[in-house]
Amino acid sequence: MKGKFYGIGVGPGDPDLLTIKAKKIFDEVDIILAPETKDGKGSTALNIAKPHLNQRVEIIEKKFPMTYDVDVLNNSYDEISDFIKGFIDRGKKVAFLTLGDPMVYSTYIYLFKRLKLKNVEIETIPGITSFCAIASKVGIPLGENEETIAIVPSVYYKKGDEKLENILKNVDNIVFMKASGQIDGLIDELDNTGHKKGSVFVSRLGLDGQIIEEDIENRRGIKNNYLSTLVAKKNKSIR
Amino acid sequence: MKGKFYGIGVGPGDPDLLTIKAKKIFDEVDIILAPETKDGKGSTALNIAKPHLNQRVEIIEKKFPMTYDVDVLNNSYDEISDFIKGFIDRGKKVAFLTLGDPMVYSTYIYLFKRLKLKNVEIETIPGITSFCAIASKVGIPLGENEETIAIVPSVYYKKGDEKLENILKNVDNIVFMKASGQIDGLIDELDNTGHKKGSVFVSRLGLDGQIIEEDIENRRGIKNNYLSTLVAKKNKSIR
Repeated sequence: MKGKFYGIGVGPGDPDLLTIKAKKIFDEVDIILAPETKDGKGSTALNIAKPHLNQRVEIIEKKFPMTYDVDVLNNSYDEISDFIKGFIDRGKKVAFLTLGDPMVYSTYIYLFKRLKLKNVEIETIPGITSFCAIASKVGIPLGENEETIAIVPSVYYKKGDEKLENILKNVDNIVFMKASGQIDGLIDELDNTGHKKGSVFVSRLGLDGQIIEEDIENRRGIKNNYLSTLVAKKNKSIR
Repeated sequence: MKGKFYGIGVGPGDPDLLTIKAKKIFDEVDIILAPETKDGKGSTALNIAKPHLNQRVEIIEKKFPMTYDVDVLNNSYDEISDFIKGFIDRGKKVAFLTLGDPMVYSTYIYLFKRLKLKNVEIETIPGITSFCAIASKVGIPLGENEETIAIVPSVYYKKGDEKLENILKNVDNIVFMKASGQIDGLIDELDNTGHKKGSVFVSRLGLDGQIIEEDIENRRGIKNNYLSTLVAKKNKSIR
């Protein structure tokens, strides 16, 4: 038997937002590999997938460092991809779980690149992104007619950043992913460019502790959860 | 029994990329409403959903005008939302199928807005977007680290458009949705801003007539299919 690596997007939170394909692959693989969070609550991605896993599959939770230190991250990705390749070389099928979509700001990308270089057979299964789920839940069309959409990984952009301000000036609708720590600056920027009126803050959609806040001013000065997203439409009410 | 309207994203093409939630709702509703295309081949969204529909459900295909004439479109959306409301008022549950995600450039948005104004109970189920499915299939991470992503509905933007050029200048990775008619101009623009090297053209992913072309120059001068997408990364090889 030839080993294979799967990257599987489990969506934002609701276990029923997994794809039928993801569920089928869970029944084919030997090992489910899930990233563990630092807070000791186990793996969020694993909790989402759990209702769809059979009794037979082996579950391995792996700690990923929560840091922006590139050396620490690269060492960790090297180590974990070697760990995965060990199973593949023994003919095992391994599925790595990832929140949302595997190709949108996910840790999976770094494992994917390393294992691809090692000629491992890989299949990636897309997942529902947080921003699509939010748009459906809250009833905000993300893009219609000629509107353009930008997706910005907030942790890398501070208030006053030129690149950020150019994007806000030129794009109609904005999604800020991981809008946690820097939220006050983001709200200021949205206010300056006319996006604030049509905005909504959503945290942990479909998970315990879900927050949907349509007056984003109420999220100022708060250390928001890591799984937080701001969606904002220029010059438009969201309803 | 109270009627209800569902908007359901069926994803880009592979029937197994539907969500488990979509499948569950198919078993609860009385009527499946699917948009019919002009080419007489029936509804693409319906063909994707078909393997998951039970025998009991009533299927209605509705013609939508393929035009940019706002009056014609608005009359059609008014007429179709009234048609849907007729069923809701008689206590029926109606699911409207939409390709990809319902809140990303979909016809559903216009029905959703009208029926919301009429206080119809609505639930929208997100779907896998074409660009996420393309990223997984081709192995292009859409966004990693500090990279920003823009999504542009190509039909509204011609070569030389100032808004388009500002977006290309300021955003790292670009998704052109519906990259069919205007593709020569889009390729020129991507070339000018350093996005061309890291680009891929994908048409009808997971459907009959699927095209994946990593040298986008080969798509010049061609009237490409309506369901075509260009994904481009700035200054980066896609592999």
